[in-house]
Amino acid sequence: MGPHPTVAAIRLAVRRVLHDVLAASADASAAPSTTPAGPDGPLVLAACSGGADSMALAAALAFEAPRLGVRAGAVTVDHGLQSGSAGRAQEVVERLRALGLDPVDAIGVTVGRQSTTAAHGSAYVGSAGTGRRVGPEAAARDARYAALDAVAERRGAAAVLLGHTRDDQAETVLLGLARGSGTRSLSGMAAVSGTGGRYRRPFLLLDRDTVRQGCLAQGITVWEDPHNHDPAYTRSRVRHEALPVLEKSLGKGVVQALARTAQLSRDDADALDQWAADAQADAAGDDGSLDVARLHTLPAAVRRRVLRRAAVAAGSPPGFLFARHIEEVDRLVTGWRGQKALNLPGGVAVRRADGRLVFSPS
Amino acid sequence: MGPHPTVAAIRLAVRRVLHDVLAASADASAAPSTTPAGPDGPLVLAACSGGADSMALAAALAFEAPRLGVRAGAVTVDHGLQSGSAGRAQEVVERLRALGLDPVDAIGVTVGRQSTTAAHGSAYVGSAGTGRRVGPEAAARDARYAALDAVAERRGAAAVLLGHTRDDQAETVLLGLARGSGTRSLSGMAAVSGTGGRYRRPFLLLDRDTVRQGCLAQGITVWEDPHNHDPAYTRSRVRHEALPVLEKSLGKGVVQALARTAQLSRDDADALDQWAADAQADAAGDDGSLDVARLHTLPAAVRRRVLRRAAVAAGSPPGFLFARHIEEVDRLVTGWRGQKALNLPGGVAVRRADGRLVFSPS
Repeated sequence: MGPHPTVAAIRLAVRRVLHDVLAASADASAAPSTTPAGPDGPLVLAACSGGADSMALAAALAFEAPRLGVRAGAVTVDHGLQSGSAGRAQEVVERLRALGLDPVDAIGVTVGRQSTTAAHGSAYVGSAGTGRRVGPEAAARDARYAALDAVAERRGAAAVLLGHTRDDQAETVLLGLARGSGTRSLSGMAAVSGTGGRYRRPFLLLDRDTVRQGCLAQGITVWEDPHNHDPAYTRSRVRHEALPVLEKSLGKGVVQALARTAQLSRDDADALDQWAADAQADAAGDDGSLDVARLHTLPAAVRRRVLRRAAVAAGSPPGFLFARHIEEVDRLVTGWRGQKALNLPGGVAVRRADGRLVFSPS
Repeated sequence: MGPHPTVAAIRLAVRRVLHDVLAASADASAAPSTTPAGPDGPLVLAACSGGADSMALAAALAFEAPRLGVRAGAVTVDHGLQSGSAGRAQEVVERLRALGLDPVDAIGVTVGRQSTTAAHGSAYVGSAGTGRRVGPEAAARDARYAALDAVAERRGAAAVLLGHTRDDQAETVLLGLARGSGTRSLSGMAAVSGTGGRYRRPFLLLDRDTVRQGCLAQGITVWEDPHNHDPAYTRSRVRHEALPVLEKSLGKGVVQALARTAQLSRDDADALDQWAADAQADAAGDDGSLDVARLHTLPAAVRRRVLRRAAVAAGSPPGFLFARHIEEVDRLVTGWRGQKALNLPGGVAVRRADGRLVFSPS
């Protein structure tokens, strides 16, 4: 008798990603091998909060990895946001070790200060220089990824698996929609992301119910983060208020539709970014100034992306550069009536001179 | 003392559109004139249901048009969906005439049969050949636009104004999101659409509250369509259930964010369509077959659009051609392992032969 269908689905999703990791490792090594990697195979870590999704991920990794010659470990992040969270992190570590995962790291991050403390080593979480305005949820996420990056590098991990499901993806798309900043903000989470494609999300096409039933079917003990139900958190409100009502209004397929939107938006945004990069190279002089006549030939969506790229290249911080700034720059191209130089965030000035847009310190 | 600020905002929105219509009329005529068009100026019609948004539109048109030498009329569509709707349509006609609009037409459409009856003339509403699968709301919309087209042509109108507000736009984006079919489906309603840019939506950047307050401020009698509150209609559920909860979860700016998403998505979709048209011209032979090597160089988002265009050009009806069909065709390009010909909706076959994709009758 095979495993419960939900367990089979979960394991299949992890197995596919491990195959991809092995293929990428083989590509990266000088002497590719078609045999399993053996005891010295690549290390793959499951990022695990102790919740159902990531415990299912860790269990599937523990099951599949040895069959493919992959070493399987895990890492749990303690945000220190609840009292007793350090003790809970230790409990999660023990559960992960009981699954046969090794190494297992618990790493503490302190959000709001530029430091992290780690049970097994330490990492520095910098917020300087990113030029992004971040809320508390984004700050926690940045700190978490910085901590995961540090563990992955210290352990020499080939990949870190994340337990985000299709439902998480749908929530991310709705959160992006609320920003109203276009196609890229609707593209959700990537199946592969991070430096060198370090982060992989095997469950992005699986719904949360499947993953949770898979946990139940295996009798895995899970710990539910109370933040997931705390209406003070936007994502929690989206999960427990917005999505259920959207399903009621628009029909049961809303989560799938949002997940499809993520994929299609990502592909569209990638294509437009590629076009913009080519167009920028085409229109830019050695000093980075842009030929207005060439900009005129571009569709608005591409022209605005080129202007944004040029402003960022000149030193304007992306997180402070809003659509209204780019629209003002665009009027130097499409609504020219002798305007003065514009000042962009980060001390960047843009002026039009001799048929070119010139970006310089203001 | 000037008009109430909401009335001023409404009139300004209509005035801007009338300027655009005059400019377009001047462009179209052999002898452009800079003087107002006078008694023979272009005719602009307000499409009016008798509800607050379109009555505000009609009143603003009646006020602004004479000042710009534009002739102002109106048209009301009776869907015949409620008993007594013919009498109500006649009442709306009288209110519109009382605003000074002339001509005013009431036109009846019968949804579900391929015919319309018109109080002043008649129009044929065909559903054949569009190749779209339509629900009752889409069928009603198609019938309405066909009736408006017929009246506009019979009256020789230069433009038909529609009273859609930013809130309607937000609802349309959410309805598109529920389809999950990508950037174009998120682009909402265009400010200018239809044959020759006939339809114009002056209120697309105004919120519904402003427009309704403008009605109140002018003491205009309005008639609320009970369908707008009928939860049997998806749009009504989106308006009264989904959007309020989204605002509660995501913040007050959701309607604006959705409206911005519409504009950005429309620009992105236009740019990608342009790229796809160029790429198709580049990859296609005289027989419409596509060069696989050229398709390979395109980003996925553009390649899939090219494949869709080629399938439609070969006779596959757009409304029946789903993402899964295009993905299967795409595998002939990116996952080639000697597959057989594929059958697409509308009796179109696609096969790969000699490095080309060939579309032909199946």
